[in-house]
Amino acid sequence: MGDQVGQAVEGTLYYIPYPEFERIRALKMAREQRAAIFADMCRLNALYMIARAGSGHIGSSFSSLDIMSWLLLEEMQKDDIFFSSKGHDAPGYYSALIGMGRLEFDLIHKLRKIDGLPGHPDIGTPGIVTNTGSLGMGISKAKGMVFANRLAKRSGCIFVMTGDGELQEGQFWESLVSAVNYGLHEITAIIDHNKLQSDTFVKNVSDLGDLEAKLRAFGWRVERCDGNDIGAFATTLALLKDETRPKIIIADTIKGKGVSFMEHTSLDSDVAMYRFHSGAPDASSYRLAAQEIIERLQQHMSAAGAAALGFETIEREATAPPPTTAQRLIPAYTRALLEQAEKHPNLVALDADLILDTGLIPFRERFPERFFECGIAEQDMVSTAGGMALKGLLPVVHSFACFLSTRPNEQIYNNATERTKIIYVGSLAGVVPGGPGHSHQAVRDISALAAMPGMTLVEPSCEAEVGPLLDWCINEAPGNCYIRLVSLPWEIPYELPRGYRPKYGQGMTIVEGADIAIITYGPVMLSAAVKAADIFAKEKGLSVRVINLPWLNIVDSGWLKTAIGSCRHLLCLDNHYVIGGQGAELSRTMAQWDSRRAQVHHLGLEDIPPSGTNQEVLSRIRLDTSAIVEALGKALKQ
Amino acid sequence: MGDQVGQAVEGTLYYIPYPEFERIRALKMAREQRAAIFADMCRLNALYMIARAGSGHIGSSFSSLDIMSWLLLEEMQKDDIFFSSKGHDAPGYYSALIGMGRLEFDLIHKLRKIDGLPGHPDIGTPGIVTNTGSLGMGISKAKGMVFANRLAKRSGCIFVMTGDGELQEGQFWESLVSAVNYGLHEITAIIDHNKLQSDTFVKNVSDLGDLEAKLRAFGWRVERCDGNDIGAFATTLALLKDETRPKIIIADTIKGKGVSFMEHTSLDSDVAMYRFHSGAPDASSYRLAAQEIIERLQQHMSAAGAAALGFETIEREATAPPPTTAQRLIPAYTRALLEQAEKHPNLVALDADLILDTGLIPFRERFPERFFECGIAEQDMVSTAGGMALKGLLPVVHSFACFLSTRPNEQIYNNATERTKIIYVGSLAGVVPGGPGHSHQAVRDISALAAMPGMTLVEPSCEAEVGPLLDWCINEAPGNCYIRLVSLPWEIPYELPRGYRPKYGQGMTIVEGADIAIITYGPVMLSAAVKAADIFAKEKGLSVRVINLPWLNIVDSGWLKTAIGSCRHLLCLDNHYVIGGQGAELSRTMAQWDSRRAQVHHLGLEDIPPSGTNQEVLSRIRLDTSAIVEALGKALKQ
Repeated sequence: MGDQVGQAVEGTLYYIPYPEFERIRALKMAREQRAAIFADMCRLNALYMIARAGSGHIGSSFSSLDIMSWLLLEEMQKDDIFFSSKGHDAPGYYSALIGMGRLEFDLIHKLRKIDGLPGHPDIGTPGIVTNTGSLGMGISKAKGMVFANRLAKRSGCIFVMTGDGELQEGQFWESLVSAVNYGLHEITAIIDHNKLQSDTFVKNVSDLGDLEAKLRAFGWRVERCDGNDIGAFATTLALLKDETRPKIIIADTIKGKGVSFMEHTSLDSDVAMYRFHSGAPDASSYRLAAQEIIERLQQHMSAAGAAALGFETIEREATAPPPTTAQRLIPAYTRALLEQAEKHPNLVALDADLILDTGLIPFRERFPERFFECGIAEQDMVSTAGGMALKGLLPVVHSFACFLSTRPNEQIYNNATERTKIIYVGSLAGVVPGGPGHSHQAVRDISALAAMPGMTLVEPSCEAEVGPLLDWCINEAPGNCYIRLVSLPWEIPYELPRGYRPKYGQGMTIVEGADIAIITYGPVMLSAAVKAADIFAKEKGLSVRVINLPWLNIVDSGWLKTAIGSCRHLLCLDNHYVIGGQGAELSRTMAQWDSRRAQVHHLGLEDIPPSGTNQEVLSRIRLDTSAIVEALGKALKQ
Repeated sequence: MGDQVGQAVEGTLYYIPYPEFERIRALKMAREQRAAIFADMCRLNALYMIARAGSGHIGSSFSSLDIMSWLLLEEMQKDDIFFSSKGHDAPGYYSALIGMGRLEFDLIHKLRKIDGLPGHPDIGTPGIVTNTGSLGMGISKAKGMVFANRLAKRSGCIFVMTGDGELQEGQFWESLVSAVNYGLHEITAIIDHNKLQSDTFVKNVSDLGDLEAKLRAFGWRVERCDGNDIGAFATTLALLKDETRPKIIIADTIKGKGVSFMEHTSLDSDVAMYRFHSGAPDASSYRLAAQEIIERLQQHMSAAGAAALGFETIEREATAPPPTTAQRLIPAYTRALLEQAEKHPNLVALDADLILDTGLIPFRERFPERFFECGIAEQDMVSTAGGMALKGLLPVVHSFACFLSTRPNEQIYNNATERTKIIYVGSLAGVVPGGPGHSHQAVRDISALAAMPGMTLVEPSCEAEVGPLLDWCINEAPGNCYIRLVSLPWEIPYELPRGYRPKYGQGMTIVEGADIAIITYGPVMLSAAVKAADIFAKEKGLSVRVINLPWLNIVDSGWLKTAIGSCRHLLCLDNHYVIGGQGAELSRTMAQWDSRRAQVHHLGLEDIPPSGTNQEVLSRIRLDTSAIVEALGKALKQ
């Protein structure tokens, strides 16, 4: 049954074992009270999962757990469905599913680990009904489920949780309309209105205005309640039982609810950046948070006349920080952008609620009037940039690569047809970090953008390459550009040639070699290639030429001939699906030559990447150093 | 000054020459009255343009012309901007610009002709400030213009016209928010609320509900007026002069306003399909419409005590109907879909306001409960299909290829990560019809979708190939599929092999030949290839093998070797950008072979396609028969 805990100890992680959940679920007490205890138990376990994973979304897991607990414990019938459209609250929902016995308990130790629990929901996990993590799709998905149920004469309610920042996505409003026209009363949407989105307060990012009035005007039945008051929430749900319209509850919640110093209400709303949206707490914060939850739980148990809860403990593994020598492309980008902005008064920066991750805070501080926070509204942001460019500005448009390349894909094309100049900057590019899972792994962005007329796609491989490439995009590129940035700090085992300047379509040899050439780009793949070349040369006595080609959708044919030289084989490495990646364009160029220079081989993604640690993911999809060594051997039949 | 017209004659086209516009603009009369006359003059000229082009949007040109005329004649100051977000009303706006003397008069004869006036607005045309034609981007663009103006300390109002069907797009609602938060009072949006979208009544497609309440809830200043009553519109504009919020006018208009039998108010709103959304009127309808406008104009002139208007005439060129032997892929698709739907009770069809163009009317009639009209809401449609598939349905999702592949690109990927089965059907694929211009020419869809994991892209080349490919997608495909359909009736100079059954990744030889092979797909390119092969063989005495490969993102490597055989050259023809097209994937496959079989050459798009007649466009972008003959010669150095 586990130990009771007096004082939480720094360096120790605490979780509540499954039998305690069974005991609580069977305990005779007021249902609301029991659900509140259950929710706090889930908070502790979610906190454990995130601390152990080293990453995860505490804030929205905590804000939504009272609601999830009530739904799972008391509300949902056999055919009912719950899912979270935002998906950030996955650790919270996993811990609730685990507490319900619907998910194997041992998975609690495997958040963001391969074959464990992905960073955002995936239907491969029991109890998860749809893949989420890119925002705004929830109501649409729920409608599809209701239509299917109705056709099959199945009953069942669908509870969809959404974020509040998520309401900035146009698809949310787009999806409300037909739910009313078709009378989809089976849907109850619940807005986890915790007032903060990823960076800071929703009202500072893109104020939602009079949310109740908007939702009512759209024809939904709207109720509002305190979403951390289980009784109030239960009463609100009961109110809606016989409603024939689709229903939506604005549940006012507190981000980080349940741990005093994680609650957003302690922040100054005018300046604050919330610290617990994603990432893991440090050891000291963890200890204090665990202590606070545990003490409250034991008080509740004692007040209920029940035996104190037992806990399990485990020593926190020291997660090594990135080596101090690791290179960080985002800060390098920030510096380069500021430098360009000083020179170009018409340069403006646009952001979609990722000002921290895209490195724009110093830009906003330096050029407040030239910074535009668009909220989670990528389509609007891109078309706004289009209008700016038509009137003489040079917009630099930022988001994560996964979202920027796909959500506003038609809008980017529309801008391209106007032949204005816009720079798109997609960070978090590639398969790693592997923790967030496929909604965030940008591995389709090259293919999604490569055919945009006049657009050049580039990716820097190290800090030193960021500035020159941005400079090229701004001062030399003939048209639109897309800059693909790996966000992870990465140890770089190579240097660019001294005095490096980008030449259109041309790369550079990083390691000399004569038997086979590797062409790749970006810090993750180029580092692996350099290491693999070294290993292969030592093991096989054959030399591997490693070439960095920062151009993703163009290549200078003459340069390529020289670059490959006498190598009879070329291995293309793509931090991307093989189809539509850089290697595909290299192949296309080489196939047009009048004689064959080299046989081409590819390593890259062939299927949806898994969620896991970076090494787990790279190893599973066969894109790590050992896979490259193997591919080199296969190519050379060694 | 042109002739006066008594009775309009069938077969004759009428337009008003420029000096008459100058005369009217200088005429002393009530400003509203003058604007009404100007608007009717523009109606006649827009009707002329559309009749001469053989295609164009009458309904929304006519509904919006009173508003446009007032803005251009009386309202707009030097720095003000007007544009139409929907863009369907381009003929109306062109005729107004021509009437203002801002656009060269002779362009009136060149609607939808190359180097003339494109089917949807393009900034290459004087007076057009932004490219439109794909919906929902207007307010976002306007915001970008205001931000740029403010930074440059420029003043100027921005008038953006939107459609009402367009309001189904999520981006419209997404774009409203920051306009309020930034206080963009410079923007006046005008909804041309003519109650009909492309297929039929907005309220039957996807009812907008209480539009005023919605817009007010979003924080905009909202006014409503009769948009065909110029006085009422002018008064409404005046009301808004000092408003500090962004402003929106719901202008109640009549689609087809100004020609009694083209006005939608004569329709039965429960069943009607509106006949004058796009396309040209037949000779008899044209004559009646012209007669009606001309008579009204002359009455107005007479009442104003002004000399009657003079007209120019021109004989209408007989536009040859497509030959009766032309093949029509959309009806073939309709038949095939019905057949599959009979066999698969879980098959459902989803549409985004293109039920006529995508061939779904018979499906809706036969299976009303399995048909889902989603409105102009592609993202919502695709995610709804995702929810359906999760619950056991087999959704078949329809729109134009240009929209379907790009607007919901992230949603398609999200569905793909769930590994459910969904069939996407994109019609209007490729560069022709050339009239609508780049917003509607789907030439980037293969690249945008090819890397979707598990998704197979196919395109039938003739009616006989449609059914077998749909059958393969539904009954054999391992995952998601995308079916790319050319919508134009096309004369097909080849037949498929008897008993043809699709084999995954394999094509078929259509014309035997030994010196060079062409691989292509779809009726437009394959027909041109067959013709070019014939010409080339006769002219040069060299034989060309023509191969139909309906698989766009995969190829069976072994089959490809055999198919190319001893040909030392392969010409890939893409009805698509070369980058990311079928030819790119063929190159990638061939570059991996251990020895070189053939040198690859490409014909396909390299830049944004122009608007024009089909032949003009194919000729200009060098994708017609003569260009293929030339490419064959170049490849073989003949």
